[in-house]
Amino acid sequence: MKTQVVIVGAGPAGLLLAHLLKAEGVDCVVLERQSGPYVLSRIRAGVLEQITVSLMERLGLDARIKAEGLPHDGFNLADGERLIRIDIKALTGKQVMVYGQTELTRDLMDAAGPRGLHLIYEAGDVTLHDVESDAPFVTYTVEGAEQRMDARFIVGCDGFHGPSRQSIPASVARSFERVYPFGWLGILADVPPCNHELIYANHDRFALASQRSPVRSRYYIDVPTTERIEDWSDDRVWDELNIRLGPEAAAHITRGPSIEKSIAPLRSFVFEPMRHGSLLLCGDSAHIVPPTGAKGLNLAASDVHYASEALVAYFRKNDADAVVAYSDKALARVWKAERFSWSLTKLMHRFPDDGPFERRMQVAELDYIASSEAAQRSIAENYVGLPV
Amino acid sequence: MKTQVVIVGAGPAGLLLAHLLKAEGVDCVVLERQSGPYVLSRIRAGVLEQITVSLMERLGLDARIKAEGLPHDGFNLADGERLIRIDIKALTGKQVMVYGQTELTRDLMDAAGPRGLHLIYEAGDVTLHDVESDAPFVTYTVEGAEQRMDARFIVGCDGFHGPSRQSIPASVARSFERVYPFGWLGILADVPPCNHELIYANHDRFALASQRSPVRSRYYIDVPTTERIEDWSDDRVWDELNIRLGPEAAAHITRGPSIEKSIAPLRSFVFEPMRHGSLLLCGDSAHIVPPTGAKGLNLAASDVHYASEALVAYFRKNDADAVVAYSDKALARVWKAERFSWSLTKLMHRFPDDGPFERRMQVAELDYIASSEAAQRSIAENYVGLPV
Repeated sequence: MKTQVVIVGAGPAGLLLAHLLKAEGVDCVVLERQSGPYVLSRIRAGVLEQITVSLMERLGLDARIKAEGLPHDGFNLADGERLIRIDIKALTGKQVMVYGQTELTRDLMDAAGPRGLHLIYEAGDVTLHDVESDAPFVTYTVEGAEQRMDARFIVGCDGFHGPSRQSIPASVARSFERVYPFGWLGILADVPPCNHELIYANHDRFALASQRSPVRSRYYIDVPTTERIEDWSDDRVWDELNIRLGPEAAAHITRGPSIEKSIAPLRSFVFEPMRHGSLLLCGDSAHIVPPTGAKGLNLAASDVHYASEALVAYFRKNDADAVVAYSDKALARVWKAERFSWSLTKLMHRFPDDGPFERRMQVAELDYIASSEAAQRSIAENYVGLPV
Repeated sequence: MKTQVVIVGAGPAGLLLAHLLKAEGVDCVVLERQSGPYVLSRIRAGVLEQITVSLMERLGLDARIKAEGLPHDGFNLADGERLIRIDIKALTGKQVMVYGQTELTRDLMDAAGPRGLHLIYEAGDVTLHDVESDAPFVTYTVEGAEQRMDARFIVGCDGFHGPSRQSIPASVARSFERVYPFGWLGILADVPPCNHELIYANHDRFALASQRSPVRSRYYIDVPTTERIEDWSDDRVWDELNIRLGPEAAAHITRGPSIEKSIAPLRSFVFEPMRHGSLLLCGDSAHIVPPTGAKGLNLAASDVHYASEALVAYFRKNDADAVVAYSDKALARVWKAERFSWSLTKLMHRFPDDGPFERRMQVAELDYIASSEAAQRSIAENYVGLPV
């Protein structure tokens, strides 16, 4: 079989790219190792930047986001008894949208059939070939039978563990990584959120009060990477949240049984370049941010935006330069988001190697943020997403 | 002898405080271990915040600052080929004044006689007594003869190594410290500056192009703390500056023989509380900042401002609460300046433990600063000095 663009991975990045290319008349096929229901079962982030919402708008797939999403005008940094509100609407004129990544994926998936996208689920042994040439192809198996898909370009939207990044030879690549000495234990429960906006707390240790809807809450605490989820009963998690979120927020926590509960490691990772020959990387296949600041999905969306523009320019205007420029363009925004996620992580977590001086630096930074409009504006503009 | 306030130390902090108290009719005596000429021989910082200039204005001692000081509207962060100008005037409406600390000390010293200040130089073995009582006193020797000075308050303006801080018992105190893995090698020379504004560079390693006047330059490079100044000929320093400041600035460096050349360690240090009983601490006796951002002298000036207000309130209005409030008031500003100095140090230096990821975070932060008015405003408002 032959198409113009093979997209590896049918998570939100791959599906969003497929819709954008299809809308512009570029043929593509999406290969996904897992089944559709499995993809939908993955619980991920839930705060959308305007760039992400506007891509859905452009596709006319924003009806449910608009109906069910919760526009937020601000968020909070808590430290001890204090709650510092970052009024992102007043500071930047923009909002963020609380809407689960799972829901976004579902919207993109539901529209795939009606819009004639070509998705192949449960594609095994996906392998990229000849990515340095103008005629790359992908082999994969369907129910044990080997298949081949030829294309002009391959786009890797297959996440940190997918095969796409591995197809770029180490001799032309460089990667940057920082692993953090803790993970996030997340709990999802059908209970009302303790606050109408998100609270990032560094009261005792880190905690985050987040939400998916007025009746579905998402909370996180950081734990040493050695912790096992089996040792964390729901009650133990709620008890810990009660301490870490501080008295004001804790008073409004509604406890309930977990729908999902897991520990995710925290990592900063960037792979350069994001294009090699006829292969482009988008989202987690090229970079990981720690979840503090909710940049992961939104960075994938801006990568997809740049990649779709480059590919459309190639097929519509024969503009090969646009594809060449993709990596630098995407990386400029990636690094800034990496910086913000890293600095917010450092501000709001207790690091095992930090001493009393470093802790006071956190408090001093929060004091400064509380007193400075410029500092608040800087945080707000990063939180809503820097210009694309 | 008896006075209302004994000030230990006749550096800029002690002299400034003595003038401010005298102007408000509070009696004081300043004790200094060294001779006047020795104090004047110490080369220190040279960038004054508005708070420092305005205290000199209030004293009517700003004639020479106004005549010889260089008001600066901005400064620069250099990284590779790039120069990011922080337009502090446009961003904050304020300026900083380039004027040597030595000159400021000279102005204060020259006015001491005419204004009837009581300064005692070469006071040996200065020892504080009964600081927890309402009748503290200081003993010291003059030409070998022991003397005693009684007072209602003692103010320690005697720097990091002076005896005042040591008089506060460890049981009520807490100190916070960070020592950096490098020092600043400074060179002072009577040559025109390479640029009309300061340049903080992180081109290869750290360098700072600073100045004292249109014909006197002050440059710094960071070096491992193990370096010995004997191993750094003037030529070697100029060669290194040539590399580190980047081609654009390097092209304008005028070389000349050093008037002064030394290596200073970098340290962050805060001692709490800044008042114990009848003893108040100001400036370096209570805190040290790394010199990045030029906050040392200016923090001493804001401490002195708070201390003089508190002491005047005590003697004029019998307001003991003002003295009690001094420590918290001063420390709030101290910690924010510590944070700024620390973060600018981290942004502009290469730390031995930092890897490629941390270096990219520096570049990403500089990229972000270059592109964001909010980020520039945040840096500018810290650079000119946060509100007192």
